[in-house]
Amino acid sequence: MQLLKEYIKKYGSVREGNVLKVDSFLNHCMDIRLFCEMGKEFFRLFGDDNITKILTVEASGIGIACIAAQYFDVPVIFAKKSESKNLDGEIYSCAVRSFTKNRVYDIRVSKKYLNEGDRVLIIDDMLAVGNALCGLIDICGQAGAAVAGAGIAIEKGFQGGGDALRRKGVRVESLAVIDSMETDGTIVFRED
Amino acid sequence: MQLLKEYIKKYGSVREGNVLKVDSFLNHCMDIRLFCEMGKEFFRLFGDDNITKILTVEASGIGIACIAAQYFDVPVIFAKKSESKNLDGEIYSCAVRSFTKNRVYDIRVSKKYLNEGDRVLIIDDMLAVGNALCGLIDICGQAGAAVAGAGIAIEKGFQGGGDALRRKGVRVESLAVIDSMETDGTIVFRED
Repeated sequence: MQLLKEYIKKYGSVREGNVLKVDSFLNHCMDIRLFCEMGKEFFRLFGDDNITKILTVEASGIGIACIAAQYFDVPVIFAKKSESKNLDGEIYSCAVRSFTKNRVYDIRVSKKYLNEGDRVLIIDDMLAVGNALCGLIDICGQAGAAVAGAGIAIEKGFQGGGDALRRKGVRVESLAVIDSMETDGTIVFRED
Repeated sequence: MQLLKEYIKKYGSVREGNVLKVDSFLNHCMDIRLFCEMGKEFFRLFGDDNITKILTVEASGIGIACIAAQYFDVPVIFAKKSESKNLDGEIYSCAVRSFTKNRVYDIRVSKKYLNEGDRVLIIDDMLAVGNALCGLIDICGQAGAAVAGAGIAIEKGFQGGGDALRRKGVRVESLAVIDSMETDGTIVFRED
């Protein structure tokens, strides 16, 4: 998606340790006009796929997922990362290692909101080694729900998570795939 | 807002310890049609107020804030609750005690995204004793930004946070204010 690539080139910055900072438009300050264009693009890609739910994980995926959900006219479920009085009863859970936060946490979804009849689109802001995405797919599996695919804003292709899932047959559609990036600001995108 | 009150009556449930479970439409599974109606209502209330930014806190506020931001055509900033490689440089921070999670945490906003020229609408899903909202107002104060007001989905009026802020002159607009609730399901709303 050309607009997103332009945002990354213009406003993103590359830091040591394969960190891509996109906090000025994607995951701290959120550019809602961009989010609307991304939502339309996800609908172009998955709009004929009989999606019944969008699934994401707190926190950075929620905004993109909610904006996209308007085009699909389906609810959004966000997996929770911490214990909460708001999440009781039976849950699906999966342990996930965070790349940016360097720790392991459980993600949790109430059994009430995901089941066999669902056809799920997973949406997230970033895909690197793919741990969060694998955890969300695992939760869909526990629920017996079908995974139609994953819609990702930015995939760090050189970290391999997206391609590993594609080899397993998961449809992963990333709006910008970065093949390489350097701290001098050089960012090379995969050809569409 | 009548529609939200109907949702609360129909789908909400009251638990011990003043917990209102609204996870089926507000803060775990999110009903995007309802969010659009809430966003329009916030725009009706604050649309003439020259808002430049919407500020919320992860995670449950993000969806409502992003949907509302489309009507205001402004960016959304979400305060972060945990350390992250994505948030470096100078930050505003404030300690906040969570009612639902029963712990104290810091909320953080990068200094890059909030400043003197801003006129901020704070949006959140729930208001109880008002700790998160006070923290967000404090952060706006640190930035020298003006707080136009707070747009809240559900206020638990009997916990006093909203009225305490109104007495201090903060414009708090809650789409549903609960004056009392009981575990037998009785929920009494404040008259508009």
